[in-house]
Amino acid sequence: MTSSPLNAVILAAGKGTRMRSSLPKVLHKVAHKPMVQHVIDTAVTLNPAQVHVVFGHGGEVLKQQLQGQSLNFVEQAQQLGTGHAVQQVIPHLGDDETVLILYGDVPLTRAETLSNLLAQTQHSPLALLTVTLPDPHGYGRIVRNSQGAVVGIVEHKDATAEQLLIDEVNTGIMAVHSGALKRWLAQLTNDNAQGEYYLTDIVAMAAAEGVAIQTAHPQDIPEVEGANNRVQLAGLERAYQARQADQLMLEGATLMDPARVDVRGAVSVGADVVIDVNVIFEGNVVLGDGVVIENNCLIRNSRIGAGTRIKANSVIEDAQIAERCAIGPFARIRPGTELADEVHVGNFVEIKKTRMGQGSKVSHLTYLGDAKIGAAVNIGAGTITCNYDGVNKFITEIDDGAFIGSNSSLVAPVRIGKQATVGAGSTVTKDIEDNQLAIARGKQRNIEGWQRPIKKG
Amino acid sequence: MTSSPLNAVILAAGKGTRMRSSLPKVLHKVAHKPMVQHVIDTAVTLNPAQVHVVFGHGGEVLKQQLQGQSLNFVEQAQQLGTGHAVQQVIPHLGDDETVLILYGDVPLTRAETLSNLLAQTQHSPLALLTVTLPDPHGYGRIVRNSQGAVVGIVEHKDATAEQLLIDEVNTGIMAVHSGALKRWLAQLTNDNAQGEYYLTDIVAMAAAEGVAIQTAHPQDIPEVEGANNRVQLAGLERAYQARQADQLMLEGATLMDPARVDVRGAVSVGADVVIDVNVIFEGNVVLGDGVVIENNCLIRNSRIGAGTRIKANSVIEDAQIAERCAIGPFARIRPGTELADEVHVGNFVEIKKTRMGQGSKVSHLTYLGDAKIGAAVNIGAGTITCNYDGVNKFITEIDDGAFIGSNSSLVAPVRIGKQATVGAGSTVTKDIEDNQLAIARGKQRNIEGWQRPIKKG
Amino acid sequence: MTSSPLNAVILAAGKGTRMRSSLPKVLHKVAHKPMVQHVIDTAVTLNPAQVHVVFGHGGEVLKQQLQGQSLNFVEQAQQLGTGHAVQQVIPHLGDDETVLILYGDVPLTRAETLSNLLAQTQHSPLALLTVTLPDPHGYGRIVRNSQGAVVGIVEHKDATAEQLLIDEVNTGIMAVHSGALKRWLAQLTNDNAQGEYYLTDIVAMAAAEGVAIQTAHPQDIPEVEGANNRVQLAGLERAYQARQADQLMLEGATLMDPARVDVRGAVSVGADVVIDVNVIFEGNVVLGDGVVIENNCLIRNSRIGAGTRIKANSVIEDAQIAERCAIGPFARIRPGTELADEVHVGNFVEIKKTRMGQGSKVSHLTYLGDAKIGAAVNIGAGTITCNYDGVNKFITEIDDGAFIGSNSSLVAPVRIGKQATVGAGSTVTKDIEDNQLAIARGKQRNIEGWQRPIKKG
Repeated sequence: MTSSPLNAVILAAGKGTRMRSSLPKVLHKVAHKPMVQHVIDTAVTLNPAQVHVVFGHGGEVLKQQLQGQSLNFVEQAQQLGTGHAVQQVIPHLGDDETVLILYGDVPLTRAETLSNLLAQTQHSPLALLTVTLPDPHGYGRIVRNSQGAVVGIVEHKDATAEQLLIDEVNTGIMAVHSGALKRWLAQLTNDNAQGEYYLTDIVAMAAAEGVAIQTAHPQDIPEVEGANNRVQLAGLERAYQARQADQLMLEGATLMDPARVDVRGAVSVGADVVIDVNVIFEGNVVLGDGVVIENNCLIRNSRIGAGTRIKANSVIEDAQIAERCAIGPFARIRPGTELADEVHVGNFVEIKKTRMGQGSKVSHLTYLGDAKIGAAVNIGAGTITCNYDGVNKFITEIDDGAFIGSNSSLVAPVRIGKQATVGAGSTVTKDIEDNQLAIARGKQRNIEGWQRPIKKG
Repeated sequence: MTSSPLNAVILAAGKGTRMRSSLPKVLHKVAHKPMVQHVIDTAVTLNPAQVHVVFGHGGEVLKQQLQGQSLNFVEQAQQLGTGHAVQQVIPHLGDDETVLILYGDVPLTRAETLSNLLAQTQHSPLALLTVTLPDPHGYGRIVRNSQGAVVGIVEHKDATAEQLLIDEVNTGIMAVHSGALKRWLAQLTNDNAQGEYYLTDIVAMAAAEGVAIQTAHPQDIPEVEGANNRVQLAGLERAYQARQADQLMLEGATLMDPARVDVRGAVSVGADVVIDVNVIFEGNVVLGDGVVIENNCLIRNSRIGAGTRIKANSVIEDAQIAERCAIGPFARIRPGTELADEVHVGNFVEIKKTRMGQGSKVSHLTYLGDAKIGAAVNIGAGTITCNYDGVNKFITEIDDGAFIGSNSSLVAPVRIGKQATVGAGSTVTKDIEDNQLAIARGKQRNIEGWQRPIKKG
Repeated sequence: MTSSPLNAVILAAGKGTRMRSSLPKVLHKVAHKPMVQHVIDTAVTLNPAQVHVVFGHGGEVLKQQLQGQSLNFVEQAQQLGTGHAVQQVIPHLGDDETVLILYGDVPLTRAETLSNLLAQTQHSPLALLTVTLPDPHGYGRIVRNSQGAVVGIVEHKDATAEQLLIDEVNTGIMAVHSGALKRWLAQLTNDNAQGEYYLTDIVAMAAAEGVAIQTAHPQDIPEVEGANNRVQLAGLERAYQARQADQLMLEGATLMDPARVDVRGAVSVGADVVIDVNVIFEGNVVLGDGVVIENNCLIRNSRIGAGTRIKANSVIEDAQIAERCAIGPFARIRPGTELADEVHVGNFVEIKKTRMGQGSKVSHLTYLGDAKIGAAVNIGAGTITCNYDGVNKFITEIDDGAFIGSNSSLVAPVRIGKQATVGAGSTVTKDIEDNQLAIARGKQRNIEGWQRPIKKG
């Protein structure tokens, strides 16, 4: 039956009161991505014919956050249970399709696990994802007969003493043949304490029909865990991050502490990369061979070339850094920065929308904004590109081999020629030609008999 | 009996040799607060008639650190056991009071747990706080008869093989009617290997009298754990911090890693606050709705308004920051700073005792000290308020809409008028009127034929 | 037999394919030291007559990394199993020696554990280090007879159902009399699925000879764990760091979070040292009494005097800092810095190869390089020592009591005399005599009618 078209149904209607948030529950994030987006992304890897998102609370926010994707939004106006939620999708389903039921607040299920589950539908119209828990307290137990066949799910509160010993529990995730699903959902009642329509009731119906219900299992428990409050959300975050850390290490990166790295996006690592403690990666990050990222760095959407070392406490965002550079500690590299090979950026240096050529150095207490800097340039401590007049931004050009003395102010637009020199403490407002020395500072006067200030009352 | 006045007795006489410290054991800190202060603070929530602190080693330091509180300090000149310690308090107790025995090195007991314990004294002159341990090795076991009634405590070394299987152990915390306590303490002997008077011996006396000893239990084990060395102290610190993290999450804050947040004081959070990894809060901190605190920030005694983002690696102390501000990364906000709505503070900026009006910006490498800054002011990179002449501090005033060019030095006292402009690289020593432009820098000379320095031997 | 000379044999030939690295496996590091170096250092504490390192893959790199030590490198040209590896050492062994077999990728074995193992060789020519695992799956089980004597090792795949229940497993570490070792190794065959010579086969030979095989055990499991990939390497790193943290705490240091401290070298602590979260120590670090290291600091090869506080986010390297100093936050102290008592270094300050005398202060946004600074000097915010002309470095001297105004540039070589004053914003190029005031800046002009820039298209 796996050849029948796949329909993924993602239940995403919950309000999530215990999140104590204005945001719908499924939009709360794991690794900076909404939980429901994790579920969608995983579902999409299975090549579904259609992905249905059942929404309720916060539907507009949800649609807006998930816009631009090929999703069929289905409203569940009233929250009357999981069975009721799936019933809303029925009009969108044909009679010979495979329906995969997923949950917008269960973000960490692996595609591989879902493939295994779907493979079970070759043998049966109903396949359940079940999991063995060390403490199954509170969960619906999977009841099997003496041959091991699933015969039903018993809720914790209804379980016999013997059934309470069962540690295989229902995850809610299932794959169902659409024809059977329609038939079973039509029979659902809300004849229970909560007055809700429970999707799990179809399991008993299938068993009653003599269906050979199949099961599949996740690799680990976080795959089937949901988040109803932020304690659980944090649990998922850490489970997700532990996976990312393992992945980086298996790809050959050394992590000084796998519990102290965060990947909120995608990181690609070359050979023999070393990542020290408390590093955070966001967006798309590419690290070349032998890159070292020291402690407490934040790297976002950047490419870092082979042999480059990013020293402690640096923040790098939307930047291209080439090979064998040394950056930091305490460097702030902002968007639009491109550093060629062997550039040195030192401490308390901010660089924005600036290109630096090979071997150039800016070692201390400097702001470079909107600058085009050649190769082998040396920029002294305390240099400021004055790129902003309050309303406009201007370019500073510094050509190959120039030497900018310390504490200089370069008032853009301005060009400093090849091998030119700026004397320390200068405010440069006019272009400097190649090889010229520019000085723009007051003359020193030494005054005798200076009376030091005294303490005022 | 709970209507009888409550006397909390806190045993705090231990030296704590294994702490390897000159400080008395109970003054070692959890979350920057002495352990004994945690115990006092919890006791005080129970509205005791009196809190007695039994001191021994380091009594003067203890009294000094705990000064200004309503405490009855009772000296235990010689350390002759817990029973002996409580005996010192007897002269301060009436005959119809409830005595709650607590320990200055057991800081994490919840008030709720103690209330439960005290409620048991309605039924009995003696109620014990007991706990079930996965590994009870070394602890005194609670011996119960076949009806479940407590009949005694047996020390590990005296226990039979059968008794060693008991996993309910004595915590030492108990509530006792003062009349019975006096009677039992009078019977204590030090007829044991250590030659000490053990408080726990009164349990056997009570049982022998046929007293129906009651018990209560903590919610978790750290509630009854003490610290004899710094390994155990660190264990308590992390247990305490885990509680704070849970509390913040249940109040609706997102923590990227609950194991990497530290609260050393009290934090109040609005809706949808996000706290990234390795953030430390000290003192009283208030975070408005939607506040984001990025990684590695330290926030002490500050109020941060709704929608403000504190970027990575910032240190903020005794400051008021209003709404929709952006601060950091690498910002240092020092005491006495008040930032109005929509203020932007960038990297490598230090602000001390300064007010900034709405929408003002200071983005890079700047020191603002003792300044009064209006609204919509732009302060260029590398600006320094020269507020100190070596002995006195002076005020810098910058009025609404002023533009301070980069690398300027503002020599206080000085006033820069509304919409005034300071040219880059200027040293401003005289007031600037509204709308004026001030320039105070050397004139640029470009010199041909400059010979670059050559390497000296 | 312990009086016979000790030969340590370290097997270090593995390639470590799963490390995905060009580096030989045993050169991967724990706490910045190659795993095999940990093993060598531990072996050396046992006073061996000889340490043999059996190398294979990457032998040249290995020899180069381990050069300068008294090691006998023995090549294993082909990797034909552990027995084959030890066979390569046979020509270097006499007939009455004790041979201790160690593994270059098992770095955390304690010397004490190995001493215990060696002590067993007084009773037997063969002593095994064995360990009890909660999950022995996959490991060779230690088979004992009804008297408890070791009779063999059975590999997991060959074990009976009953033997699979054994939780005592072989670690591979063993001590053997050289005569017996030679005899047994000569009998080894590679008659197994892998076609390798297994060292563990000698255990069955010993048992067959009726040898009373002895055993010893590690204190914890990490002592006998190896690393085949970077996940396992990270596991060893954290186990090592947990040991260091425990050690620091038992020596009397308060750690705010033992899971967030890294020691990559040796740290000595005085009394009542406090170390906040995410501190990293590298090389040799000495912390005096009462030193406080705040969060996120990196301290390398430095000595910090009693009562000094290193504030958050500071990086200190190869520096001597005396007593009662306050450093940071955001301070960068680089090699060759010596700070006398009561020096204050503030935020965004970099100091390199500089001496500062007692009580001197440099509080904000400053670069001091190659400077000799006296006592009671005040260096204003934004000061830069211009110590580099592009090719040469020069010295700046600032004598006792001098006051350097903010945003000054001090163009070295230059000397500023005792009690001299530099006006704010000055570029100092000539020496200043004692008590002089030097000013070197442009004169302020206030210009009316200045037209502010307007937005350009």
